[in-house]
Amino acid sequence: MRNIKLTIEYDGTHFKGWQLQKPSSRTVQGELLKACAQIFGTKVVLIGSGRTDSGVHALGQVANFKTRSSMPTDEMLRALNAILPEDIAILEAKDVPADFHAQFSVKKKTYRYALLTRPIRAAQERYFCTLYPYRLNIARMRTEAKTLVGKHDFKSFQANDPRRNKKNTIRTISKLIIRKKGDYLFIDIEANGFLYKMVRNIVGTLLEAGAGRIPPGNVKTILKAQSRTLAGKTAPAKGLCLVKVDY
Amino acid sequence: MRNIKLTIEYDGTHFKGWQLQKPSSRTVQGELLKACAQIFGTKVVLIGSGRTDSGVHALGQVANFKTRSSMPTDEMLRALNAILPEDIAILEAKDVPADFHAQFSVKKKTYRYALLTRPIRAAQERYFCTLYPYRLNIARMRTEAKTLVGKHDFKSFQANDPRRNKKNTIRTISKLIIRKKGDYLFIDIEANGFLYKMVRNIVGTLLEAGAGRIPPGNVKTILKAQSRTLAGKTAPAKGLCLVKVDY
Repeated sequence: MRNIKLTIEYDGTHFKGWQLQKPSSRTVQGELLKACAQIFGTKVVLIGSGRTDSGVHALGQVANFKTRSSMPTDEMLRALNAILPEDIAILEAKDVPADFHAQFSVKKKTYRYALLTRPIRAAQERYFCTLYPYRLNIARMRTEAKTLVGKHDFKSFQANDPRRNKKNTIRTISKLIIRKKGDYLFIDIEANGFLYKMVRNIVGTLLEAGAGRIPPGNVKTILKAQSRTLAGKTAPAKGLCLVKVDY
Repeated sequence: MRNIKLTIEYDGTHFKGWQLQKPSSRTVQGELLKACAQIFGTKVVLIGSGRTDSGVHALGQVANFKTRSSMPTDEMLRALNAILPEDIAILEAKDVPADFHAQFSVKKKTYRYALLTRPIRAAQERYFCTLYPYRLNIARMRTEAKTLVGKHDFKSFQANDPRRNKKNTIRTISKLIIRKKGDYLFIDIEANGFLYKMVRNIVGTLLEAGAGRIPPGNVKTILKAQSRTLAGKTAPAKGLCLVKVDY
């Protein structure tokens, strides 16, 4: 059996997220499974690095599947891109060792959150950023963000969902970079793993700090509280993108 | 009468271009006229800086209209953005002198053409760039582009359309910048005016040069020939964006 690793870009706008659901819900995994079945003439088991929610995008989602096909990977790449809908693109298809597992082998993931900080909504980027038309103290956001970097229990930033909550809520954020570019503010977070809605809850909390609605140093208090009730609102899905997965 | 200048961003994907046509065709001007009629309770005459074709985008299209309304411009801005569909955004509304005319007062316009030069199509930016998956000699494109800068007769780059062709085909390109950014190649062209499909025909011709399909120095020959038959193919609309209009 060959083990094939796919790197996948998608526009999450018109998907009910990554994870296969009932056939009436359009999902990225569902579209990939259909395309694989068509190419290989048989169903495959497709393992993703993790789920992305409805409306969340990816520039470098990763998945793997096993196949007995002898088709060269460049041919798979072409065939998949020819069949897949235009809001999914396979960037790379490669043979990997048998023990590679898109979910369990993950070392680090990087998410990017895009905020448009001007007063007026975007016409062109409307599905790829969240409008934040209020004043933001970016220096303060950066200071507060520093307390999140490192190994911590991120329970305060995990959305409550019995089906998706993790017992072990300790994760290590290796990078948290807030970058201004024109009217956009990008928040890049790299970690060894993420809890459910963790990035969007961190972004919502950093926005509260930047807007001055929580006092300086409060992000540390929220983190230590290990309770979702203190952190800021969950930032909307459309501003979020899974940029890359490292193995 | 007040004279109001609007700066407009739009995603041209789902429009049959700027210019109002039959009611069944969705156009940017048509949507703006509807919104103005709703806000002011009467029809306005809306003058655009120029047309953009079906699928062409704008970050800074400009239009003006006269009104007897006493509504403050910041209120107009909010009202227009509240009514307009999500693929149009008014970035600015301001009072300008009575003699300001969005078309006749134009001093310069800047268009940007976006090419994605990787082998694989974009999922996220699919409506905002043209895929060019072949080898390109960018240095050569830049050399050829230099011969287009300045005051020239651009007849060779005007698409044939009896309704839209200009008698005077002399224009001045003040800037032509080819910029590589990651997998993208951006071609910015600033001129005192553009002929019908001029940017897209220039881009198509520069691509022929970059691909080595026309010999070095040939862009000058094409320019001098003053005939559309020699220039390259018209590049697709979706890669084109009207970035700004200077007055």
